[in-house]
Amino acid sequence: MRALKRFLEHSLVQNLIIALIIVNAIILGFETWPPIASQYGSILSVLDRALLVIFVVELSLRLVAYRLSFFRDPWNIFDFVVIGIALLPATGGLTALRALRILRALRLVSMIPSMKRVVAALLSALPGMASIITLLLLVQYVAAVIATKLYAGISPEFFGDILKSAFTLFQIMTLEGWADIARDIMVHQPYAWLFFLVYILSSTFTVLNLFIGVVVNAMQEQLGEEVKAEHSEDVAREQAHFGLLLEEIKQLRAELSAIRVERQSPP
Amino acid sequence: MRALKRFLEHSLVQNLIIALIIVNAIILGFETWPPIASQYGSILSVLDRALLVIFVVELSLRLVAYRLSFFRDPWNIFDFVVIGIALLPATGGLTALRALRILRALRLVSMIPSMKRVVAALLSALPGMASIITLLLLVQYVAAVIATKLYAGISPEFFGDILKSAFTLFQIMTLEGWADIARDIMVHQPYAWLFFLVYILSSTFTVLNLFIGVVVNAMQEQLGEEVKAEHSEDVAREQAHFGLLLEEIKQLRAELSAIRVERQSPP
Amino acid sequence: MRALKRFLEHSLVQNLIIALIIVNAIILGFETWPPIASQYGSILSVLDRALLVIFVVELSLRLVAYRLSFFRDPWNIFDFVVIGIALLPATGGLTALRALRILRALRLVSMIPSMKRVVAALLSALPGMASIITLLLLVQYVAAVIATKLYAGISPEFFGDILKSAFTLFQIMTLEGWADIARDIMVHQPYAWLFFLVYILSSTFTVLNLFIGVVVNAMQEQLGEEVKAEHSEDVAREQAHFGLLLEEIKQLRAELSAIRVERQSPP
Amino acid sequence: MRALKRFLEHSLVQNLIIALIIVNAIILGFETWPPIASQYGSILSVLDRALLVIFVVELSLRLVAYRLSFFRDPWNIFDFVVIGIALLPATGGLTALRALRILRALRLVSMIPSMKRVVAALLSALPGMASIITLLLLVQYVAAVIATKLYAGISPEFFGDILKSAFTLFQIMTLEGWADIARDIMVHQPYAWLFFLVYILSSTFTVLNLFIGVVVNAMQEQLGEEVKAEHSEDVAREQAHFGLLLEEIKQLRAELSAIRVERQSPP
Repeated sequence: MRALKRFLEHSLVQNLIIALIIVNAIILGFETWPPIASQYGSILSVLDRALLVIFVVELSLRLVAYRLSFFRDPWNIFDFVVIGIALLPATGGLTALRALRILRALRLVSMIPSMKRVVAALLSALPGMASIITLLLLVQYVAAVIATKLYAGISPEFFGDILKSAFTLFQIMTLEGWADIARDIMVHQPYAWLFFLVYILSSTFTVLNLFIGVVVNAMQEQLGEEVKAEHSEDVAREQAHFGLLLEEIKQLRAELSAIRVERQSPP
Repeated sequence: MRALKRFLEHSLVQNLIIALIIVNAIILGFETWPPIASQYGSILSVLDRALLVIFVVELSLRLVAYRLSFFRDPWNIFDFVVIGIALLPATGGLTALRALRILRALRLVSMIPSMKRVVAALLSALPGMASIITLLLLVQYVAAVIATKLYAGISPEFFGDILKSAFTLFQIMTLEGWADIARDIMVHQPYAWLFFLVYILSSTFTVLNLFIGVVVNAMQEQLGEEVKAEHSEDVAREQAHFGLLLEEIKQLRAELSAIRVERQSPP
Repeated sequence: MRALKRFLEHSLVQNLIIALIIVNAIILGFETWPPIASQYGSILSVLDRALLVIFVVELSLRLVAYRLSFFRDPWNIFDFVVIGIALLPATGGLTALRALRILRALRLVSMIPSMKRVVAALLSALPGMASIITLLLLVQYVAAVIATKLYAGISPEFFGDILKSAFTLFQIMTLEGWADIARDIMVHQPYAWLFFLVYILSSTFTVLNLFIGVVVNAMQEQLGEEVKAEHSEDVAREQAHFGLLLEEIKQLRAELSAIRVERQSPP
Repeated sequence: MRALKRFLEHSLVQNLIIALIIVNAIILGFETWPPIASQYGSILSVLDRALLVIFVVELSLRLVAYRLSFFRDPWNIFDFVVIGIALLPATGGLTALRALRILRALRLVSMIPSMKRVVAALLSALPGMASIITLLLLVQYVAAVIATKLYAGISPEFFGDILKSAFTLFQIMTLEGWADIARDIMVHQPYAWLFFLVYILSSTFTVLNLFIGVVVNAMQEQLGEEVKAEHSEDVAREQAHFGLLLEEIKQLRAELSAIRVERQSPP
């Protein structure tokens, strides 16, 4: 068991897996480049299957080696799901899933420490943002219901039902083509600009604050550490200086007391 | 009275109200999803009315319990208005107001402390921004008057009157489709690019500074508090150290004086 | 002279001028609202002329009171130009200038201190940005020449001459409709995406750095002052403590010396 | 050799070159302004050739003066390539390269120190961003492969092959016209909104973090230096104070010891 772990974590094995993932990503990329796909399609397909076998073997070995603790690392769950997708039969409604095989390339992130750190940093910003994201979703939901109620009849393409409205409102939040949508509705409801103005201002302001949260968080972490290290150094130095001075003064006092004692019992 | 307050603020009652608000939000959402709305429309409508009754009762009880101090909390006024909207007759020009019933869902914000804090933080940034927002509105007004004077004849759709101009200028400020509008006018007035360039640069620069204000404000609050706590700790420690050293030295002096006195009056 | 200055700077006179500027802004706004403009157009025009007379008188008095030092304040030059525009004959190529009469409303900025401070803060960020703005203009010029050389034949509407190219590139920098322009050209020159990619990345990256410069500048000013005040307080306190300790120790030494002298010359 | 270096680095020669670069940039600009280009085209062409000769001579002299160390400064390599482009024959597939002659104007950046510093600051931010840029490219590649697999059949114009998909995804990342592309596909694949939503959120979030990295980096450099200078001043002052106090106390102790010694050997 321990030998298997050592084998899997050996840098040669790790680098081989990284290389195979890159090769696999290139193969899957070639499949989307018609001139090559049409000529070498079958070879690419065989290679992809061969690589899949290797990945399945590697994943199985890791499962054997780490057992249930394997599932403690979210990156392992990601690997597990991505490999699992490739093993599903490509029939019926699942053909779309075949397109997700390329997600394997994202395993590179979990295998290269510097990339892993960047993604961890990106994701670490999210929990602190939970409240504001919930608020944003609530505002989106409320706006979608209002927009559907008000404009479903006028503009069924954009606001026909709540899902269409939610999509359109997301589009408006990205400020893409919002004015044309608003103008079409304002032909029938001249005061519709009020809804769009309020929605754009409130949603972009909330998103801005979401961004600020991420920025302040990042600065607190990156700048803060440096400043904190410096500060605790300052405190330590000041403490040491204070200690030395106090010690000196105390010895002075001891010496004075000694003199006094000597005086009272003269030689 | 006190019993009523205790009842209303009891966590069970609060959680029940939160649950009913969520249920109500879902019901109002279903009404905008045609397959469900067409089949269960009447049931949804009855449920909505039943919930409205509960909310009216809850609001009345709060009014009785807190009397005029009820209106001191802006969230209460918000509740009052939102419930009031639902009680208006849905006839004539007021049908649009029925769409605002879903605003009740925003009461969730006032009932969940973490959400309340986020919204309070968002709104707290606004007062400091009053000057720059006034400036932005003034620039918008001036630009709208100029644009109407210059382009009302050429492009009545976009700049026909001051309201249309204001809307179009807001659109241009979001950089959405501004180039097409500008090009249409530049066919007739080749120097119109000057107006659009100046407007885009000045309005986006002002908005950028509005954003910076919000960012700096947020950092001052979030980073500042931490730094301030640390700083007052530093000051306190330094004061304490200074006090101790001074005390020691004073005792030293007292001892010296004692020696001197002893010397002058030898044993 | 001094009396005239005191009269002009009297808060009553200032507030009257502010009120007249607002009234004038509203009048000029009404002129762009067809229902009112068509009915009361002549009255509005008379009122505007009357107000212009008052502003001319006020400006002349200020010129008399301050003489050449009047032109030292850039806001005064702004007033002078804006009033001057209104006095030009509205004929020939100058009709467009009549639309600029509303610029008078911007005098509000110079008359309300809090607004003046905001605008001063906005403008204060510009000098530090001179280098990066020059760089941006240089990049724009170079890109405009290249784009005209490469695409004038293919897309004369967007890149026909250097001015059209500069306008189109500014449009692309705002990311508005850039993809359609690029795709039209890529039909004829498949590698044109390279130019657009490089241009978008370099120009947005430069603008981003322009923004960062403004942000860092603003933070340095707003946060910096507070921190600096605190810091100089800290330094002063530390200096005072050090001085007191040193004084105490020196007195101690003086006392010791006194003892020694006394000993060597016993009573 | 040393004389040649001194000649090339003489401020008169440097300013002459700067002037010639500006003249050359203006000439190349005039070539893209039809009214002038058609009338004075041949003169402009002759002038451009004359200036090219001067630049080639200057570059050769610099090559002679600095030899291989010439290529150590990346700005020199830039000059070398840009001048080299102009010397290539303008035939066949290379006509496009003639449009790049204007890149010479960018030599201004390398000749004006303040501009050079700005560009160096811009580029200095890049190495620290390597990980996140790699991540962004990986995400782009994965998304392009998925989009091609899923939508090549439905929307060959936008997602026909991996290069078209990459271009379209870059367009979507700039939020330009993304909704129309998404809606066209959603007609055939109703769940396509999921792909676009995930792609937009993840790519804009990554770009946001790229920006934050640049901002934090810039602040660390610009604000950090100031703070660090101040801090090391504080530390130095505190060290000096501590040293003085310690010295005083030690002298006190020496004096006490002297007293003690005197006492034990009385006069």
